[in-house]
Amino acid sequence: MPQHLERGVFLFDTPPKIESFAAVAGEKEGNGPLGDFFDEIITDSHFGQKTWEQAESRFQLEAVSLAVRKANLTKEDIDVICAGDLINQCTGSSYGLRQLEIPFMGLYGACSTMAESLIAASLLTDSGAAKRAAAVTSSHFSTAERQFRAPLSYGGQRTPTAQWTCTASGSVIVSPDKGEIEVYGCCVGKIADMDITDIANMGAAMAPAAMGVLCRYFEATDTTPADYDAIITGDLGILGSKLLIELMEKQGYDISDVHKDCGEMIFNPDEQDSHCGGSGCGCSASVLCGYFLPMLQKGNIKRILFIATGALMSAMSVQQGESIPTIAHLLELRRK
Amino acid sequence: MPQHLERGVFLFDTPPKIESFAAVAGEKEGNGPLGDFFDEIITDSHFGQKTWEQAESRFQLEAVSLAVRKANLTKEDIDVICAGDLINQCTGSSYGLRQLEIPFMGLYGACSTMAESLIAASLLTDSGAAKRAAAVTSSHFSTAERQFRAPLSYGGQRTPTAQWTCTASGSVIVSPDKGEIEVYGCCVGKIADMDITDIANMGAAMAPAAMGVLCRYFEATDTTPADYDAIITGDLGILGSKLLIELMEKQGYDISDVHKDCGEMIFNPDEQDSHCGGSGCGCSASVLCGYFLPMLQKGNIKRILFIATGALMSAMSVQQGESIPTIAHLLELRRK
Repeated sequence: MPQHLERGVFLFDTPPKIESFAAVAGEKEGNGPLGDFFDEIITDSHFGQKTWEQAESRFQLEAVSLAVRKANLTKEDIDVICAGDLINQCTGSSYGLRQLEIPFMGLYGACSTMAESLIAASLLTDSGAAKRAAAVTSSHFSTAERQFRAPLSYGGQRTPTAQWTCTASGSVIVSPDKGEIEVYGCCVGKIADMDITDIANMGAAMAPAAMGVLCRYFEATDTTPADYDAIITGDLGILGSKLLIELMEKQGYDISDVHKDCGEMIFNPDEQDSHCGGSGCGCSASVLCGYFLPMLQKGNIKRILFIATGALMSAMSVQQGESIPTIAHLLELRRK
Repeated sequence: MPQHLERGVFLFDTPPKIESFAAVAGEKEGNGPLGDFFDEIITDSHFGQKTWEQAESRFQLEAVSLAVRKANLTKEDIDVICAGDLINQCTGSSYGLRQLEIPFMGLYGACSTMAESLIAASLLTDSGAAKRAAAVTSSHFSTAERQFRAPLSYGGQRTPTAQWTCTASGSVIVSPDKGEIEVYGCCVGKIADMDITDIANMGAAMAPAAMGVLCRYFEATDTTPADYDAIITGDLGILGSKLLIELMEKQGYDISDVHKDCGEMIFNPDEQDSHCGGSGCGCSASVLCGYFLPMLQKGNIKRILFIATGALMSAMSVQQGESIPTIAHLLELRRK
């Protein structure tokens, strides 16, 4: 049973376990600093499909299938799958996973969806509603560009603050008792909107949401940054990460020693023309599943916070002059 | 604690309760057969806003605010809100609810979202993760038409099988112990895809998903249609409802006496040019909250199944020649 600490913050009495995980990434991500850590690199951006949207669906199916295989399970062992992506109407998930015939809950939290789906899968498993639940998210550079920005063939210049949507997917299987990594606590994010309207500067828009959820969790659990081996955000990028460190400092927390950002880690900005870093809900998902969960598994780190951040606007809301509402969800993960 | 019956099907040992609910609807819905049952009718399709998208957000905010007020609560009493809508990137929810500062979980299940969000809110409350959780969804005729079909000013003819997206919102507040209506059991839907590609015939696409979730629940709980006072789908419409009754008959279940469909009920097809009936996640939400929950509250009916159905395609997936994946989630609701 979760223990309710305050609004949206709860710890699990008997923490659910992460039984398996897998990360699949595209060619550019494979050529980045974390390339060796992903389970699979798919160099064909179409992944053998006719369209990029179909390719993204295939990435998601591949990540789930791999996580299932790595735990010697079959798809019938998964009671519920919690999934989401950035494509309109979340079709990356619905088309990608339809053949699995696993009871399906679609989630939308933009790039925060990996944390949101992991919270949902943990609740389902912990409560006993599901014996095992899976979480999966994906993003694809080409599906995101044409939907949120401009057709790729238009060849638009990217601004220095822009981030590069990762072509990647990550999947986690949560079980009540199998696995060395525990989902210890969760904090469901509140929507933060600081009146930022520049969709080429998502990091700045999302940093306040990350600050909000971090402060709420620190206060509710009476902990400080020093209690954690790593505080991981995804995907504030280079600029947003700097902003978060400054914002946290103003709140009295120095996270500079332990902070890592998935968007900052996944590319080498000097060589990969990635500007402020990676983004997309496949970015934090693949870095969590490819890099951080294996480190926890091995015991190299023992206690981390994973905070996925998302920008909740649409192309139309921006055209209508609206600012960008953002959100960040947090999980505390521990090595047993 | 939920009792797991089979994959995706669970009953609550101590069922969470529905503490409050509210339904807000537009002018056309107000002129329909259920007009007297909604808490508020908003005759201005812009709801005082500049755009229809902003109007839809306002509908959602209004439904939540009303449900909170009806229970003599404040927004601070809601620990988590589970919300969704049909607009790209679910902006109806994120913009509508941002000012509430309630921890927020975004969901996407197309027109099935009211059932999905009610399942999530029930799990959060039952587990103790939240003391109170809310569920809300909305849809708006004009936002849906221009996004999924054509600009309204184009004046396209609607086919006989088409449904009319409702301008409406419904909201439910779930608590562990306050209220007369119990969330007794849930069935998380599986994605069904019968290779239907006609987006003007959603009822036909979604009926198999409703059949699937109903049969799974009947089998897992060892019940039959005769055990329920009403089996409510939303929103198969007139044609989809006929199909569901036929499909269920082939499975050995006669639901014809107890079946009701929110999409079929909300308009008068002879007078309102609504063709096959209403649709949109505000349709099932407003009919549940405006009509069926009050009937349960009064004890006029005592045991019902609420099955919201959704079509998980996008305008782009249809353009790419894809068929329509569909889903239906089920809840059993009982009067104490």
